[in-house]
Amino acid sequence: MKAVILSIGDELILGQTVDSNSAWLSAKLSDYGVMTLYHKTVADDVEASVAAMKEACELAGLVIVTGGMGPTADDLTRQAISSLTNRPLDLHPPSLERIRAFFKALNRAMPVTNRIQAMVPRGSDVLDNDWGTAPGIKMRVGKSLLFAFPGVPHEMKNMADRYIFPLFKRGNGAVIVVEALNTFGAGESTVAEKLGDLMMRGHSTLVGTTVSDGIVTVRIRDESPTPALCEKHIASVVEAVEKKLGTLIFGRGDETLPGKVAQLCGEKHRRVVVAESCTGGLVAKMLSDIPGASSWFLGGWVTYSNAMKTTELGVAADLIDREGAVSDAVACAMAGHALEKSGADLSVALTGIAGPEGGSVEKPVGLVWIALGTRKDGVIKARAERFHFPGTRQMIRDRAAKTAINWLRLELLEFPV
Amino acid sequence: MKAVILSIGDELILGQTVDSNSAWLSAKLSDYGVMTLYHKTVADDVEASVAAMKEACELAGLVIVTGGMGPTADDLTRQAISSLTNRPLDLHPPSLERIRAFFKALNRAMPVTNRIQAMVPRGSDVLDNDWGTAPGIKMRVGKSLLFAFPGVPHEMKNMADRYIFPLFKRGNGAVIVVEALNTFGAGESTVAEKLGDLMMRGHSTLVGTTVSDGIVTVRIRDESPTPALCEKHIASVVEAVEKKLGTLIFGRGDETLPGKVAQLCGEKHRRVVVAESCTGGLVAKMLSDIPGASSWFLGGWVTYSNAMKTTELGVAADLIDREGAVSDAVACAMAGHALEKSGADLSVALTGIAGPEGGSVEKPVGLVWIALGTRKDGVIKARAERFHFPGTRQMIRDRAAKTAINWLRLELLEFPV
Repeated sequence: MKAVILSIGDELILGQTVDSNSAWLSAKLSDYGVMTLYHKTVADDVEASVAAMKEACELAGLVIVTGGMGPTADDLTRQAISSLTNRPLDLHPPSLERIRAFFKALNRAMPVTNRIQAMVPRGSDVLDNDWGTAPGIKMRVGKSLLFAFPGVPHEMKNMADRYIFPLFKRGNGAVIVVEALNTFGAGESTVAEKLGDLMMRGHSTLVGTTVSDGIVTVRIRDESPTPALCEKHIASVVEAVEKKLGTLIFGRGDETLPGKVAQLCGEKHRRVVVAESCTGGLVAKMLSDIPGASSWFLGGWVTYSNAMKTTELGVAADLIDREGAVSDAVACAMAGHALEKSGADLSVALTGIAGPEGGSVEKPVGLVWIALGTRKDGVIKARAERFHFPGTRQMIRDRAAKTAINWLRLELLEFPV
Repeated sequence: MKAVILSIGDELILGQTVDSNSAWLSAKLSDYGVMTLYHKTVADDVEASVAAMKEACELAGLVIVTGGMGPTADDLTRQAISSLTNRPLDLHPPSLERIRAFFKALNRAMPVTNRIQAMVPRGSDVLDNDWGTAPGIKMRVGKSLLFAFPGVPHEMKNMADRYIFPLFKRGNGAVIVVEALNTFGAGESTVAEKLGDLMMRGHSTLVGTTVSDGIVTVRIRDESPTPALCEKHIASVVEAVEKKLGTLIFGRGDETLPGKVAQLCGEKHRRVVVAESCTGGLVAKMLSDIPGASSWFLGGWVTYSNAMKTTELGVAADLIDREGAVSDAVACAMAGHALEKSGADLSVALTGIAGPEGGSVEKPVGLVWIALGTRKDGVIKARAERFHFPGTRQMIRDRAAKTAINWLRLELLEFPV
């Protein structure tokens, strides 16, 4: 089956918002062997929307529309489907009830304008939205199946997961299987160099890399007549990649660095605390992103000012005076005191210069000392390493936080760092 | 003039890469009064590329193609233009020289495959690429002007800045100006309801809303013959919107909630600390995202465990036992102790249930108590409010953090909350 993905919105066509929905949908569809013919983005305009839907339904068996489902006057996807199919919009009482209940849970009355979101083209299937007000629409148009979802990414993804992908079963006809191995700690070109021949085109199983926020993902893609063959090819390439990349690999698919630390802490009954200066809470935020973090993450200190490093963590003021706040000694003291005060088993501490101001020749922007604190047989130890991260304030903080969390992972795995 | 923007690439159509080029081009073009009709993305395929270009050239005076200009066998944009215009590809010796020199500067020999990048359709203008190997192509196709650039964003942007935008002068013909007012604290439909008639289509100045992670942005767009007229129309609508939305508006354009708090703290010489449970460092992270935060943000406590609330912040253990960790009293105690211990002027504290587990009938997932602590004339006070945020763990934490930061903003502005 072929798919076309349409996105509708003035904010997209004016360039104020980047459309990430279409890429997400295409990536998921390709996992199920459904190839996307094209993506098209048009403005909040009934005529343009109808023309785009009509063209798509003539070319593809599956047409997915995102956007234009909000409650305001410029949200016109419902009207466009009504016009395309020549069916009037009817009120769908269960959706109206669901929207009312949504507002009630927020202790707010439903604005009158939201009533339009419960209007659907006659003869369509109405799709529940667990996380927002606008229901989705599923409708047969000629030989095509058309889906319309809100443009809000998490609402759209939830509904696509629930209503579209279950329609496809892997293993019919040519099968495409993609496996992703996530790595941290080396750049994309270094990973590519280590992979060497494995990345050559012409193999039946393709190996490629993508990079996003410091995480280099190795994608392994195989297209074979049967799922069993696919899995066999993928498994053999995964093994070869693992041999070449070793501990750089932290997980597969959706696995994250904090998720891996959470899993290892659960298995090994360890509890973690953090002490942050330049990252200002980012490491704690990343760790507590993981559901159930309270069983292993005790919390931490954001000692952004030097005074708080002393009064709250107990780092000696004269140590800070002598060595500077951004130093091996202060990073180790932060990690050590964090363990002492909290009773946790493992800690990381970070102190550095995130910029854009505050750098010097000796201590340039991007310099970060990261310390790991451990408690073994009742003895607390801390050791630190110096890093120099390139890029913007945001990049420096992100890479520093991930480096600290990766160090927790390696320590929990008892790998030498 | 109308524009169509095409992007070409298997990685786009397979969803491995999000196309940000089209949004960037549209945003820039709209500054020059050039409206984009649509964006379309197709695979690395000559037939699909030719069809997309043909359709675009029939509809728009300006067609911009990005991607498919690399040196490998699946880069086919050059061939597609050649086929569309029925002109052969000729070698362009100055481009070949430039590409050779590019590799020489890296101390590397030019791979043979790169020679294809110096091939251009006969009769086209060849556009220099300062930052990469592939030259761009400019060609008249029927009544349209077609540009083709590499898909690498910084190469494409550099070439568009150099070769496209100078063709348009602001102030000639219709001018488009867009202003954005950012709001927090009400949903999109509530904002729309308050705006009422202002959002009706048919005004010469259009008012629309977009929503992203709880921030509802009101976009005001005017198209007029001169910049002065545009600015006048925009100013009058901005005033009307401000009258209707009041303190819901926190900033314009790129302004953020933490950025506003940073600005107000600077102006009013206030210092902030945070005490977080369920948000686990997210509020501290958002505040310290702002460059120069060290002048007003002292730091905070991530007291994720109850023990840390007691040992580190000094919240009485029997208060937690009696009221529960997620309570008015504990939120206020956290905010108050944070001020006492740090000497800061303002604090926020958050305690709640971010889920997905841990909820109960009395204290459901999404329940968050947020407290504001103030120090005035040496007296510390704290008051809390109860919120119930819908959505995922990530959404609940995001909205809670933003609500707390918005409360800091309103307090700094001396607005009643």
